[in-house]
Amino acid sequence: MFANRRDVMIEWGDCDPAGIVFYPRYFAMFDASTAALFAAALGFNKSEMLTRFGIIGIPMVDTGAKFLVPSKFGDVITIESRVTAFRRSSFDVSHHVYRAETLAIEAHETRVWAGRDPEDASRIKGVNIPPQVQAAFAKAHPVT
Amino acid sequence: MFANRRDVMIEWGDCDPAGIVFYPRYFAMFDASTAALFAAALGFNKSEMLTRFGIIGIPMVDTGAKFLVPSKFGDVITIESRVTAFRRSSFDVSHHVYRAETLAIEAHETRVWAGRDPEDASRIKGVNIPPQVQAAFAKAHPVT
Amino acid sequence: MFANRRDVMIEWGDCDPAGIVFYPRYFAMFDASTAALFAAALGFNKSEMLTRFGIIGIPMVDTGAKFLVPSKFGDVITIESRVTAFRRSSFDVSHHVYRAETLAIEAHETRVWAGRDPEDASRIKGVNIPPQVQAAFAKAHPVT
Amino acid sequence: MFANRRDVMIEWGDCDPAGIVFYPRYFAMFDASTAALFAAALGFNKSEMLTRFGIIGIPMVDTGAKFLVPSKFGDVITIESRVTAFRRSSFDVSHHVYRAETLAIEAHETRVWAGRDPEDASRIKGVNIPPQVQAAFAKAHPVT
Repeated sequence: MFANRRDVMIEWGDCDPAGIVFYPRYFAMFDASTAALFAAALGFNKSEMLTRFGIIGIPMVDTGAKFLVPSKFGDVITIESRVTAFRRSSFDVSHHVYRAETLAIEAHETRVWAGRDPEDASRIKGVNIPPQVQAAFAKAHPVT
Repeated sequence: MFANRRDVMIEWGDCDPAGIVFYPRYFAMFDASTAALFAAALGFNKSEMLTRFGIIGIPMVDTGAKFLVPSKFGDVITIESRVTAFRRSSFDVSHHVYRAETLAIEAHETRVWAGRDPEDASRIKGVNIPPQVQAAFAKAHPVT
Repeated sequence: MFANRRDVMIEWGDCDPAGIVFYPRYFAMFDASTAALFAAALGFNKSEMLTRFGIIGIPMVDTGAKFLVPSKFGDVITIESRVTAFRRSSFDVSHHVYRAETLAIEAHETRVWAGRDPEDASRIKGVNIPPQVQAAFAKAHPVT
Repeated sequence: MFANRRDVMIEWGDCDPAGIVFYPRYFAMFDASTAALFAAALGFNKSEMLTRFGIIGIPMVDTGAKFLVPSKFGDVITIESRVTAFRRSSFDVSHHVYRAETLAIEAHETRVWAGRDPEDASRIKGVNIPPQVQAAFAKAHPVT
């Protein structure tokens, strides 16, 4: 399956008083990594994706991470992301984080392809993932 | 088992362009909730806890969350936290988030009671959880 | 002029590897403090304020802060906020942060009372501050 | 004077419910930009800088920003940073943010070159900026 890799520099402001990454910051990096994965497959960015497909976002419904090796400020990590399953209106993503050659974090996500509920605009509702999205992933080649 | 509850106001800056909480912010709230749980059981705050027990932190090794109901800015959520297991140098925490009476998020954590590695001060190492920590939880009564 | 005071606990995740607050976190606290100031004067929260007055936010146009004394995790700071000037479609706020009795930070903000531009919905535009907003501040008594 | 430029992609998680950058996020970007500026001038990163010069950080004492044009998620901004003054133990930095060709933000900072207070290790104290730091900036050529 198509994977996207990106390097992230660990900044001073990502780290806590123990000198290692404050773990909620990793989830912000993963959120941007999922956006980058879709942008790489589709050929346009998440902002354009929301507009073209008429959705309001891809909110998280289930996520988890195992932190195997801590990183500290000044480190550069590589985040490798792929979609591991597409369903009707939801999909799964995995992120593998490497520091040098070492696997540092394994994370997974389940997200919903979400629009406004037509019966209540203040609510969010899963909508069908368009076939061209899945097709774009099938055709995409790894960016390395 | 002893549980601690605290209310958190969802702020403008916690929310994303879809108007709901940007999920990494929940993990920051959970980190503060675990600190509040230990403070409630021990009777002193996390800063004091690190100093008294000579540890550098309680870093996360495994966490996950299921997001059942989104919250938006202006909402007040209640986070109920408890230790679900103590082991030699690690422990598990669960967080249940309620919005009004509805269960909105279920999250779990495994953390390490961590000191500096005596053989390499740049490294972090699990150390024994002092018996008085577990005893404090056994004696503590819910704060509601 | 009406002032609102609130206490903020400095959390582990607010602090950097030097063990003191990562200063962008203070600006997030100030954003919430301005929301709390308006909520205290108006009697309803910011979410309700946006809905009632038909605005999309109160975006920042100019801000600054002098950091006199650092705070570290476990500290409780008091943020005292007041509106220092109302103009047609903008206003000024000051924040004074105290740690114990010591003035720790002085900050100021200029914000716009902002709606969607009627000629281009993708743009933001200053709109007149309703007279009842300023009246609410004139009538409000300090919350201490 | 030597300037460093870097591009920053505005991510979903940087933006608020109005769809524009939550301004405290800009300060986090500026903190990383100042680190990048010193790295570009010195030839090694901030982590190495702290170790080599025996300091604990370069904490902020005064900062301010004028927000002229809002940015939204999917935008790429360019942050141009330079040191505008070196003093004995403090220095000034300016950041100019451009979106396309338009000046979007003007910001300034005063920071301290800070070590541990030798008389009280829990306190931070300005120390002399080593001459080779200022020399590195004098020799450096713009990275564009």
